[in-house]
Amino acid sequence: MKLQQDLHILIVGLGVIGGGYARALSAKGYRISCITKEQKDIDYAMERGMIAYGTTQVEPALVGEADLVIFAVYPHVFVEWIREHQGLFRPGALITDVTGVKGGVVRQVQEILRPDVEFIAAHPMAGRESSGVEYSDDRVFRGANFIVTPTERNTEEAIELCRALGRELGFARVSILSPEEHDEMIAFLSQLTHCIAVTLMTCNQSPSLEQYTGDSFRDLTRIAKINEVMWSELFLLNRDALLRQMDAFSAEFERLRTMLSTADVEGMREMMRTSTARRSLFDKPVNSPNEPPERK
Amino acid sequence: MKLQQDLHILIVGLGVIGGGYARALSAKGYRISCITKEQKDIDYAMERGMIAYGTTQVEPALVGEADLVIFAVYPHVFVEWIREHQGLFRPGALITDVTGVKGGVVRQVQEILRPDVEFIAAHPMAGRESSGVEYSDDRVFRGANFIVTPTERNTEEAIELCRALGRELGFARVSILSPEEHDEMIAFLSQLTHCIAVTLMTCNQSPSLEQYTGDSFRDLTRIAKINEVMWSELFLLNRDALLRQMDAFSAEFERLRTMLSTADVEGMREMMRTSTARRSLFDKPVNSPNEPPERK
Repeated sequence: MKLQQDLHILIVGLGVIGGGYARALSAKGYRISCITKEQKDIDYAMERGMIAYGTTQVEPALVGEADLVIFAVYPHVFVEWIREHQGLFRPGALITDVTGVKGGVVRQVQEILRPDVEFIAAHPMAGRESSGVEYSDDRVFRGANFIVTPTERNTEEAIELCRALGRELGFARVSILSPEEHDEMIAFLSQLTHCIAVTLMTCNQSPSLEQYTGDSFRDLTRIAKINEVMWSELFLLNRDALLRQMDAFSAEFERLRTMLSTADVEGMREMMRTSTARRSLFDKPVNSPNEPPERK
Repeated sequence: MKLQQDLHILIVGLGVIGGGYARALSAKGYRISCITKEQKDIDYAMERGMIAYGTTQVEPALVGEADLVIFAVYPHVFVEWIREHQGLFRPGALITDVTGVKGGVVRQVQEILRPDVEFIAAHPMAGRESSGVEYSDDRVFRGANFIVTPTERNTEEAIELCRALGRELGFARVSILSPEEHDEMIAFLSQLTHCIAVTLMTCNQSPSLEQYTGDSFRDLTRIAKINEVMWSELFLLNRDALLRQMDAFSAEFERLRTMLSTADVEGMREMMRTSTARRSLFDKPVNSPNEPPERK
């Protein structure tokens, strides 16, 4: 199977990410169907030409004609859906997802999935603070990473189609990582940062602080507005890796605390020099044509 | 003394903040002189009409004619300058500063200062990652806070002039706090956030992370590019308050860690709900006419 416009593509879950996929793929001429919970989200997407067809029911004929099924739902919903409805897939169908944690989900789904259907996992690293299809925006993909996380059960053909999907969606970079490498990376770059932002927001609840806040504090806590149902699920799915990263952060924070309490100026300066040099590696490329739009 | 265009204003230290003051005040018709270390910075500012006169020497006549002297230098440089050169001030001169920590500095300077000269402290909360006059930009003042931190030694007249200075510079909000209130607030909103950003940057130095970074991680570490000489000095000047805030953060972070390790989903969700609700208080007003320019 190759990614081309005559494929039947079905998106399950038309939220902020599923909606972004629908926008990007429809704009490229693909015919997109979707199954989602709320009729109003289907109406919204139909009016904007994001989908060609949508339903709130798991229609057997619709699932049965799909070549590629993209799951953009909570991890536990994804697993339950597969258990309940996988009999409807056509033989040879390809399944992919957008889940932010891979290890548990990928191996669990591959374990229970029919042998004549293949699941190739992917993580589009382009989260948003707001949820819902009306906040979906495929422009956020343009500066972002798309990570394919195959296992030994995946075929080269499926991996290649999933890479092509990432490129077609407009992602700046498409990479391959094992589910375990992915989860360790995401524990640090995404989950730990959310833990820190939430903690910063709740550890000092003095009433007048917001009067004096500046951009630094706002930047560090932007992601402290968080979907508690999804993120508590993602944290638990990646518990061991996240605990490791939290402990590494705490140990380094304690090292800084000790240097401060003992007035070790040279130690603090050395840590700040390391930080400054290392942060440069993470700068966004300037004037990149793939730069995402400025956040509001 | 009132803030009006015929005042002689002298800025000591033409860096990113001193330069911002010079730009804003010159644009409003004030005649600005400056003393700074590097002739090239004077040349830069003269060419752009930011100052009317500049020198790298502490010229007695220049200091002696100044009605208002603004110190935009490192805290220890400020204290040393006062010790060494305060004999040059004219009687009745007013002194202010831009130092990011107040307790130690304000009381120390007020202690050693001639009784016929008054020091009224202020903190323009508009930092930048880059230093040097060529990065100065008074537009960053427009969405920001200007905090005057008087003590019992200050006169109403000086406090009022300093508030007028904040407004004239274009700050969105001018407030009064005691030096101690200021320092506790800044320990949390600014210093703790810098500690966290630096720690996040140094606690995991795996080589390939920057390939996968997204906006969340970039936001949390923007301030991890840090002037290590200035910030280690500011941390030490506010050591007790900063240690208190670091400990409060660590305790809350440990609470989250425990909830994660014991799979306390409802506890994590409750913390995230608190975080989400509280973060809304810190949102920037939308469409504010005083909004600062977007950062690059």
